[in-house]
This record gives sequence, structure tokens and C-alpha cells, in this order.
Amino acid sequence: MVEPARRRAPRADAQVNRTRILDVAEEVFGAGGEAASTEEVARLAGVGIATVFRHYPTKAALLEAVLVRRFTRLRERAETQLSAGDAGRAFYDFFGDLVTDAATKIAIGDALLDAGGAHESVTEASQGLRRAVGKLLDRAQRAGAVRDDVELPEVYALLVGTSRAAAHAALDDEVRARVLAIVYDGLAPLPR
Amino acid sequence: MVEPARRRAPRADAQVNRTRILDVAEEVFGAGGEAASTEEVARLAGVGIATVFRHYPTKAALLEAVLVRRFTRLRERAETQLSAGDAGRAFYDFFGDLVTDAATKIAIGDALLDAGGAHESVTEASQGLRRAVGKLLDRAQRAGAVRDDVELPEVYALLVGTSRAAAHAALDDEVRARVLAIVYDGLAPLPR
Repeated sequence: MVEPARRRAPRADAQVNRTRILDVAEEVFGAGGEAASTEEVARLAGVGIATVFRHYPTKAALLEAVLVRRFTRLRERAETQLSAGDAGRAFYDFFGDLVTDAATKIAIGDALLDAGGAHESVTEASQGLRRAVGKLLDRAQRAGAVRDDVELPEVYALLVGTSRAAAHAALDDEVRARVLAIVYDGLAPLPR
Repeated sequence: MVEPARRRAPRADAQVNRTRILDVAEEVFGAGGEAASTEEVARLAGVGIATVFRHYPTKAALLEAVLVRRFTRLRERAETQLSAGDAGRAFYDFFGDLVTDAATKIAIGDALLDAGGAHESVTEASQGLRRAVGKLLDRAQRAGAVRDDVELPEVYALLVGTSRAAAHAALDDEVRARVLAIVYDGLAPLPR
């Protein structure tokens, strides 16, 4: 009888802690820089470093959990957009959102690589996002908003590339918007 | 009298060694991976590690020299294209060449970052390349091969982005060509 009683309350606490740790870790590692460390995550989350390591035994495990959650949320958002009225707008808006949002995701991914490489769960979550983008693309093509002769590999490469350019060059909003406009024009059906 | 005699021959040797070290370093660090080290460069160049370090006291200095030479050569190639007959083709071909060629350059740049950051000379050389691309763009726009309303910042961001996508995702030739086709269509004058 002792064991279940011991575990029930800590379990709820553990869930709260886990969520808070992931929220803080996403922010800390997303911002990158020298200060990004598991110690800093524990401090800002208001928990001991031992608590962080109990949930996530390594820095890589923590980063992995952050990335999986992020890819999963993006996939869910993409899937929500599959029922949007304007299929073209849903596709282009989602494309733009991903690029705008990319810098922190790339920083986290790079931190994970530094901490010992990505794991299968991250690859799976990122492939789930890719499939959802494929569905948005398919729907936008059927609606005549994206040219018929482009396929997911090149569209996804453009998405990754534009994201990496935005993150790498720390593009300001105006230049990023103009980059996206060029890509969108390239994706638009012929003749314009 | 001893000193000049001592120095003349070694100077010519030194130049040969330096060129060979840079050639090998470009190949070794461009390929990336675990085997990429200054020791490996010395071994493949057929010189002692002390010779490498006499020319390039640190790994960062060696990588810096490789990158500066590479950016300089690309700039020179771009400048040669400024007198090409077909200004549009000169611009698009150079854009495509840079993207195709990007993976090794990015690997060297990342190795330099790992080895202690980029130096001013690299930034200067890379800005020289950027200016040369700006001239190619300008000429292509005056020839009516690129739309008037795009500017260098977004074109360069696309160039960097497409390069990073090609390198990151290890795109095969066909997908890379289709990515470039979309970007070129986006850059083409309206109406098509």
C-alpha cells in the first residue's frame, strides 16, 4: 500500500515539472548562446538540477524531448489547416510560419547534434511534419494555388533552405518577406 | 651572405608546400567527418605536421586560409562572368554552380567555427563574393532576365538558403535541379 500512495502525488508533480522543464528548455536552447545549459534550464524552471536529470538523464535526452514536442505541435497545426477553406492560403501561410519560426528550432537541433546526435524519435516526429506538409501541398495543388509539376522533395528542400537562410543570416522581417515572395512566385501556377 | 642563400630555396619550397597544404586541406575538411584533422592533411600532403604548423600555426588559421582562397576564386569567377554575352545565363549559371558546390564550403566553414570562429579575412573575402554576385544580378536585371523588383539581400539569402538546403539534406542532382527551377521561376520577370 505504501508504494501507490507514494507515487500518485509525485506523478502529477512530475508531469507539471516535465512540462515546465520542456517549456524553459525550449526557450533557453532556442535562444542559443553561451548561457544555454541544463543548469540554466533548472534555475529558470525553479527546480533542482537533479530533478531535470531524473526526467531527462542527459542533455541530449532533454533536447530530444523538446524537439519531438515541437515537431509534433507543428504537425498538429498543419493537420488543423487541412480543413481550412482556402487551401492555397493554408499552404503558403504554414510555409511562412515555419520559416519565421525556424531560427529557434535550428538552434535546438544544432545543440542536440553537439550533445551527441539526433535520435530516432526526432527523425520520426520530423517525418510526421513532412508528411503533413505534403498533405497541405497536395490540397493546394488540387485547388490550383501551387503548380502541378512540383513535388514534396523540392518543396521541402526549399522550406528547409529558406528556414536555414533566415536563421543563419538573421534576416530582418522585410528581407524574409521578400525571400518568401520569390519562392511563392516560383511555386505559383503558370502562367501567372 | 649565409642568410639569403639559406632563405631563397626554402622560400620557393615554402610556396609549393603552402599550396599543396591548402589543396589537401580543402579536400579533407570539405569532405568533413571524423578523419578531418590537421594530422591527416599533413599525411596526405606528404609533409610533417611541423611544416603545416609553421605555415598555419593553428587549425583555425589553416581553415581560414582555405576559405579565403575559395571565396576569392569564386569572386574571380563571378567577375569573369561579368563580360559574358548572355547576362541572364551568366547569373543563373553562377547561382547554380554556387549551390552545387556549397556542401564542401559549408563543411569547411563549420569546421572553422568549431575550431574557434571565423576571422575578418574570411568575412572580407565572402563580402567580395557577395558584391560580385550583386554585379551579376544587376547586369542580369538590366538584360531583362531577372525581375526588376528584387534586390541583392533577398537574392543572396536565397542563394545561401538553397546552398544550405542542398548541403544539409544531401539533395540528389534531380531534386537540386528542381529546387533551382522553382527559385529561377520566382526570379524571372513578370509576366512569364
